[in-house]
Amino acid sequence: MHITLSQINDFEHLYRTHFVNSLSGYKSANLIGTQSKQGLVNLAIVSSVFHLGAHPPLMGTIFRPNSVARHSFENILSTGFYTINQVSTTFFKAAHQTSARYERECSEFEEVGLTPEFSDELNAPYVKESRLKIGMELVSTQTLAENGTELVIGKVIEVFVEEAAVKEDGFIDLDKLNTVAVSGLDRYHTGTALARLSYAKPFKPVTEIKV
Amino acid sequence: MHITLSQINDFEHLYRTHFVNSLSGYKSANLIGTQSKQGLVNLAIVSSVFHLGAHPPLMGTIFRPNSVARHSFENILSTGFYTINQVSTTFFKAAHQTSARYERECSEFEEVGLTPEFSDELNAPYVKESRLKIGMELVSTQTLAENGTELVIGKVIEVFVEEAAVKEDGFIDLDKLNTVAVSGLDRYHTGTALARLSYAKPFKPVTEIKV
Repeated sequence: MHITLSQINDFEHLYRTHFVNSLSGYKSANLIGTQSKQGLVNLAIVSSVFHLGAHPPLMGTIFRPNSVARHSFENILSTGFYTINQVSTTFFKAAHQTSARYERECSEFEEVGLTPEFSDELNAPYVKESRLKIGMELVSTQTLAENGTELVIGKVIEVFVEEAAVKEDGFIDLDKLNTVAVSGLDRYHTGTALARLSYAKPFKPVTEIKV
Repeated sequence: MHITLSQINDFEHLYRTHFVNSLSGYKSANLIGTQSKQGLVNLAIVSSVFHLGAHPPLMGTIFRPNSVARHSFENILSTGFYTINQVSTTFFKAAHQTSARYERECSEFEEVGLTPEFSDELNAPYVKESRLKIGMELVSTQTLAENGTELVIGKVIEVFVEEAAVKEDGFIDLDKLNTVAVSGLDRYHTGTALARLSYAKPFKPVTEIKV
């Protein structure tokens, strides 16, 4: 099946949204926890968190203007902090429910039944139920000229993770944490490991790593 | 287990790379196909392709300076085109092998045993074995000041996908295509669907969608 750009542009709006959202492959599922200057907590699911670098530890997130995550973005700008909380199988429906358009005064934590939790390091709420939580400090934001989305870059300032999931070489076993992946707009998946593969070298076939 | 930024900075280099690369959650696995001005084809696996918008259809990709994907990045700059090819279970080891540091004159297609395939729309090779292939036109590049990585934004100009995987509402069934996800630097996974969830509305629990 061959689909051209002009066909994509002619797709019905929601059909196109589902289709194009499926193209990049599996996506991360994370809840962004923030707090307003007035102390109102906010929680929003995003599938747009991506790794940007390890030295220093940086992550990027895309926020869509006028989306349900707009309050999160505004809170990040005003406080300079946010949390990233991996979504796992036990609460993926509650996580998805945070994408409803609640009023600014509503706490999505309360509405969907998740528990805010605080650390001394930053004024943004973690999700107690999450098994891998990251405290983030805002580094920069920019509006991407191509479509008006906001690219937020943040630095990891602390991590909470179950010790048993961290392997001897630093790799974290996401399957063990029951972390979910997203495809398209609304489908959630568990991951099943095929293998870890060795560092690739020219003319030497990769082998499986047992860690 | 609570890990602070100063502990992360004190981690041994490779340990830190594995650890931080695991934090964002599951990542997409895609092969980037490019061609030099001289007609040499190049193929590189990346886990940094992300959805940027559907109207127009845009995707972002992060390229690390001096990484094995540097030839891909240079080719994109010089030709203005590239392909994104989802990695599936049948060739994930060959895909991983493209991350070896081959000389510029080497074709990774030949070295790892994948097949280049061309369309009339762009001068970049597709991976014949891939079950979801996207032709991309370069829109913009920028060097991110935070760590010198390159953000490449491209527009989808055509898509090749197996018809049976495209659902009636435009959603593409990645499990059916045996698309793999990556975690950390080197672990590959299949996805198993938990559910598709309805569009979330305040005060109305989400339900499962049967599509």
